[in-house]
Formats: sequence, C-alpha cells, structure tokens
Amino acid sequence: MAVYTDVSPEALASFLSLYDVGRPTSFCGIAEGVENSNYLLRTERDGQAADYILTLYERRMDPAELPWFLGLMHHLARAGLRCPEPVAGADGALFHMLNGRQAALTTFLTGLSTREVDAAQCEAVGAAMARLHLMGASYASVRANTLGPAAWAPLLQAGSNGADKLEPGLVEEVSAAIADVTAQWPRTDSLPRGQIHADLFPDNVFFVGKTLSGIIDFYFACTDFFAYDLAIAINAWCFPDEATLDPRLSAAMLDGYCSVRPLEGAERDALRPLCQGAAIRFLLTRLYDWVHTPEDALVTRKDPLPYLARLRCHRAFSEPCPYG
Amino acid sequence: MAVYTDVSPEALASFLSLYDVGRPTSFCGIAEGVENSNYLLRTERDGQAADYILTLYERRMDPAELPWFLGLMHHLARAGLRCPEPVAGADGALFHMLNGRQAALTTFLTGLSTREVDAAQCEAVGAAMARLHLMGASYASVRANTLGPAAWAPLLQAGSNGADKLEPGLVEEVSAAIADVTAQWPRTDSLPRGQIHADLFPDNVFFVGKTLSGIIDFYFACTDFFAYDLAIAINAWCFPDEATLDPRLSAAMLDGYCSVRPLEGAERDALRPLCQGAAIRFLLTRLYDWVHTPEDALVTRKDPLPYLARLRCHRAFSEPCPYG
Repeated sequence: MAVYTDVSPEALASFLSLYDVGRPTSFCGIAEGVENSNYLLRTERDGQAADYILTLYERRMDPAELPWFLGLMHHLARAGLRCPEPVAGADGALFHMLNGRQAALTTFLTGLSTREVDAAQCEAVGAAMARLHLMGASYASVRANTLGPAAWAPLLQAGSNGADKLEPGLVEEVSAAIADVTAQWPRTDSLPRGQIHADLFPDNVFFVGKTLSGIIDFYFACTDFFAYDLAIAINAWCFPDEATLDPRLSAAMLDGYCSVRPLEGAERDALRPLCQGAAIRFLLTRLYDWVHTPEDALVTRKDPLPYLARLRCHRAFSEPCPYG
Repeated sequence: MAVYTDVSPEALASFLSLYDVGRPTSFCGIAEGVENSNYLLRTERDGQAADYILTLYERRMDPAELPWFLGLMHHLARAGLRCPEPVAGADGALFHMLNGRQAALTTFLTGLSTREVDAAQCEAVGAAMARLHLMGASYASVRANTLGPAAWAPLLQAGSNGADKLEPGLVEEVSAAIADVTAQWPRTDSLPRGQIHADLFPDNVFFVGKTLSGIIDFYFACTDFFAYDLAIAINAWCFPDEATLDPRLSAAMLDGYCSVRPLEGAERDALRPLCQGAAIRFLLTRLYDWVHTPEDALVTRKDPLPYLARLRCHRAFSEPCPYG
C-alpha cells in the first residue's frame, strides 16, 4: 500500500504529451497495490472528463514481460471483458517511460472489492473467469507460468530459513505435498489450456452493488490449465474461515463458470491436485516474502499459514471433486 | 503518504447510511496527506455520479477541535471559497464515527498542486488568501494559534536533543532568534486579525492549468494576524532555492492579496518579524518530527534546515518590507 515513485505535475504533463487524452484536472497517488505505483488521473478534453489509472512498474516487474500483460489486457478489453484497457500513445505504444520506469495509462473501472464473499459473487466470478478464458483464445502469444510445479522446490528452499519457526515441521510437510502433487499434476496436453488470470482474489474483482463491474491486476496472468485458474479462485473465495472449504461457495463458482464454458470431466477430476498446487504456490510465495521482508517494512507481509490450512483441507478430501 | 485505517466496503456502507449521497461505485485509499487517512469515494444517485473525500482523523487530531475546522470549511465553502465542503449527515452533523475514528465526507476538488512556482500562481494564491480572510470574518468562533510565539521555546527544548547534530550551534542561534522575534511580535490588537489558513503551502493549493481551483487542508487553521498567513505563504512559495527570497514572487503575492484586501501600513511593517516567526514555527515543528521520527519510519521526515535558511534570510534584511 504505497506510492513508490513520485510524479511531479511537470513530469506528468511531459508524459501526457505522448497521449491524446486531454489535460489533467486531477491527479493523486492511490494506496492500492503492493508491487507498483498507481495514480488516479482525471483529464478533460472538449469539456468531457475521463478517468484513468497511471501505473509505474516497479522492481518486481520484468520489463521484457510488460508488453505481454498490456497486450492481453488490451485484447480482453476489446473483446468486451470489463478490465482496464491500456491506452495507446500517439505512437501506438501501450507504455512509455516516466521517471525512469515503464508506465502505462489504463481506463478506470468503477466498483468496490468485496470482503464478505457470498454465493452470488462466487457465481459471478466463475462466469467472468470463463469469459476471460474464452476471450483469451484469440490472444496467441504464450507466457509460461513461472510459479508452476517446477518453481515450488526452489521456492521452498529459498524460504526454508525461518519456515519451521513459523510452523514446526513446515518444510517436511510441504516437501512431501510438493512431491505428491507434482506426481499427480496433469500432463500439459491432458486438459484445456489458455490465458488465465492466475491471481483472481477478491481484491482484484470489483462489484457495484451485486453486479460484477471489473477484473483488475493481470500481472500474474500466464498460459496454463483453465481449471488451475478455478483452483486459485476456489482457494481465494471459498474459505470463509481461511481453513475450511464452504462447498456452497465453490459450487456456485463452478456453476457460474459452467454456465459460460462447461467443464470437462477430466477438469473436474483434476481439481483436487490443482487446488493443492494453487495452495502450495501461494503458501510458498508468501513464505518467501515473510522470510525476506523485514518485520518493520512498509509492506504488510501476508501470513502464509492460511494457505497451509487450505492445502491440508484439500489433501484430506477423498472424492476427486468435492467442490461442486 | 499512507492510509492508516483500513475501511471495508461493509464499514463504508454502514457509514454512508448516515448520509444522503447515494450508493458507492468506487472507493480507494489515496496516498496524500501525512496526518490522516483519506479515501476517494464516488457515489451514484439518480444516475448522477459525485466524488467525495472521506477523511478518518488519526492520532494527531484533537477530537475536540474537529468541529471548529469542519465548521470553518463549511462556512468558507458556503461563502464561495473553493475549498472542500463538509457534507452533513441526515442528522445534520458534519462528522460521524468510522472504525473508532471521527470521519468526515467532504466534496472533491479538481486540480493539481504545483511544484514549479511562478509569479502568476503567487498572485492567485495571494488573492485567494485575502478572500479567505474576508469570508472568515463572519465565522465568529475563535481558535488560538497553538504554534504561536509562546510555543516556540518549549518546542525548541523538545527538539534540542539532536538539533546540534543536524547543524552545530542550531539551538543557540534559534534561541536568540526566538527572543528577538518574540520581542518584536505585534501586540494582539495592533494588526487586523481573523481566521487564517496557517499552512498554505503549494501542496495545499490546486490549479487547473493556470487557474487556482481550490485550497485544501484546513487542519492548522486558527485565529491570528492576517499578515502572519501571508508570512507563512511567502516562506512556502517565494524561496525557489529554499534559501533566497525571490522578491518578484513575493511582490506578486502581495499584489494579489492587496487586489482583494489592501494591506495596512502596519501590516507591511510587521512582515519581517512575522516572516521570521513563520520560519521559526516550521523550523521547530520539522525539528521536533526529525528528532522524534525513526529514520526508517513510513513517514518521510521533512528537513528543518531550509527553514533555518529562510530565517537567516529574513534576519539579514534591513528594510521593514523587502517583500514587495
């Protein structure tokens, strides 16, 4: 929750001279997002006001990857998904440099993210995710999932210093789960694949009243199993107490998804290992940040243990698809 | 630059039920302001969108003082000054509790604050300040300036631990200046007084293009000499190199002020001690924060020494009003 890079009105004016968006009438840093600096910008052109988000990409963004993310967002927005649409400069480029960083202007989405998840929201999220998957099919470029099974053992190793202090036996338990889940992981050609959001947490979904109004933050998007995106979202949305699956919520999410893109039997059967894998992925990145972020740092560290609880919950199930 | 208090959509909805502003369609924390938590809120009512700032008052605000500040802003906005107007709840109150803090909704002002000050901006600021002074006359309630001359010696004492490390001899030099300036300070009944902003820095003034579009942040406002408000603004706006007065800028500010409310001769004659006092006041509060804020704290500490430079500059003048 911070703005890392300060932008003066003069630097802003110079940046905006590359775009055809009118003159700025309001500009303030917003305290959302952990990775990048975000500003809310209002402009006026021909008496019309328009709102944008200006994002400066900070150190965690690989500069070579930004065109893929912005290209996907542009593609999805043009296809009709409610997501931020990158605005092209007069030169056609979707980003330009600002204060030494890559920076992009995107359209502003209305809506608020929810904290008290209900079944109707889960259904709406499932349906929106399925639309995203279908619309992504015509975005041909591939981005490998850099946080997939091959990344887990090295991530655990990098976070192991301090892991057992957090929870005695953590390293051994997660090592065993990694071996087990990796062995059950679907073969690349065995399940439908395509562009997935891969971080569809409640923070990244906006609602106005009961209506889903937008999906944001595509900076973990990648090319992977569609059902893995569902697994990530089941973990993020369907554990009201952080440890126990609420099957009404996950069933609503699957219903919403299937109303747009019916799941194949093999996808349903793979959900249990995929949910375990999704729990491992967030457990490990949170563990890494927990161990490597000073306790008094500006960024709030997220507790890894609720993802250990989810992992245990999925592993305790006996049927292949207890999710709905 | 932070949001100290998190507000969930549910807590927001409960707070907004006390107001008649419609339903929220957007809500994000903004990274402006050092003292309080601020959110930008958009609502919709009868198909009309409206923007507000929601402020939660944090620990530095004396709860007993908030009604005075909000009352002044309400009074000035109603009189036609472009400043945030507190919105009353259905019960008529200008603030309500939210997450254990006093919180107020105010109207949103367009505009950007400037970093590269020019004479036209100084003239506009002077004129707006004079309007504020005239409009404040009908706000009868008095708030003493708690950072006036009586506060300086105790503040210096509280910041003296570490002051000489910042600048050898600082305590002795500032002590002498305090004695000198206090002795020259105008008697309460000798100069025109009323409600002053008392913190009219470039951060707190918005422009759209060349036009002044708003004045914000009234939480240091108090009842004191009008000319002292000018002295604070001369220090804040007219020292482009942080140490040397640019008399073109200060003359433009005085011209703008006098175009609305002509200065009396006694006010001009008092400007030199008032400017020294204003420099002492900001030097001391910055020194206090410098000494009492950990180096790695979330809040950026402001360097006190540029205010020592301004103090020296004013003390070196020989005429009573070298400002314009």
